[in-house]
Amino acid sequence: MEKINLADKFALFDDHWSPKVAGQLDDYEIKLVKLEGDFVWHKHDDVDEMFMVIDGTMDVAFRDKTVTLEAGEFLVVPKGVEHKPYAEHECSAMLFERKGVINTGNASEGDLTQRQVERI
Amino acid sequence: MEKINLADKFALFDDHWSPKVAGQLDDYEIKLVKLEGDFVWHKHDDVDEMFMVIDGTMDVAFRDKTVTLEAGEFLVVPKGVEHKPYAEHECSAMLFERKGVINTGNASEGDLTQRQVERI
Repeated sequence: MEKINLADKFALFDDHWSPKVAGQLDDYEIKLVKLEGDFVWHKHDDVDEMFMVIDGTMDVAFRDKTVTLEAGEFLVVPKGVEHKPYAEHECSAMLFERKGVINTGNASEGDLTQRQVERI
Repeated sequence: MEKINLADKFALFDDHWSPKVAGQLDDYEIKLVKLEGDFVWHKHDDVDEMFMVIDGTMDVAFRDKTVTLEAGEFLVVPKGVEHKPYAEHECSAMLFERKGVINTGNASEGDLTQRQVERI
């Protein structure tokens, strides 16, 4: 039952698009991720996904619009909705999603797919 | 599918110990709350609870220790563990917990118990 300091945890890694588990709540995980550049279009058929920006700016593109998130803003992407995260410059974000979610969702074939999720 | 700006939402209310729902993810809710002073000792037998400080400082007292949270820090209180939040000065925090959780848990008798949760 230790507190988690986000800045301390973000200082532990530099890789992009590879969420790390920083906490667990029931069957859900609090993950930290650094984003830069383009991710792939994907959706998660069974789970909602929350993006909250801690530092920097990110876009979440949908087929019909793009939502830009700054630090202190969050967005819940509903299950089944195609989306593509993007960050022009490095962005630190917190994710909240059910344990076992694959980062690339239904597009789980590419180089960006994370098969094993590290804990920090 | 609109983004939530935490500062904008916190500007909408002034009451203490009365979490407002700012987002939903599957069966879980993202709540915003302002804390000041002392809460009651309580526990939630079936659900974990996450406290993340957005602005200010709060304490989470346990029977054997106290954890102090500053902005950018979070703590998950495991199910069944007695705790008592406290804030010397007003503190803004984000909560993450399963829908339907009563704020005062097993101590659901007092004035601080919130029977209806407002959405903002």
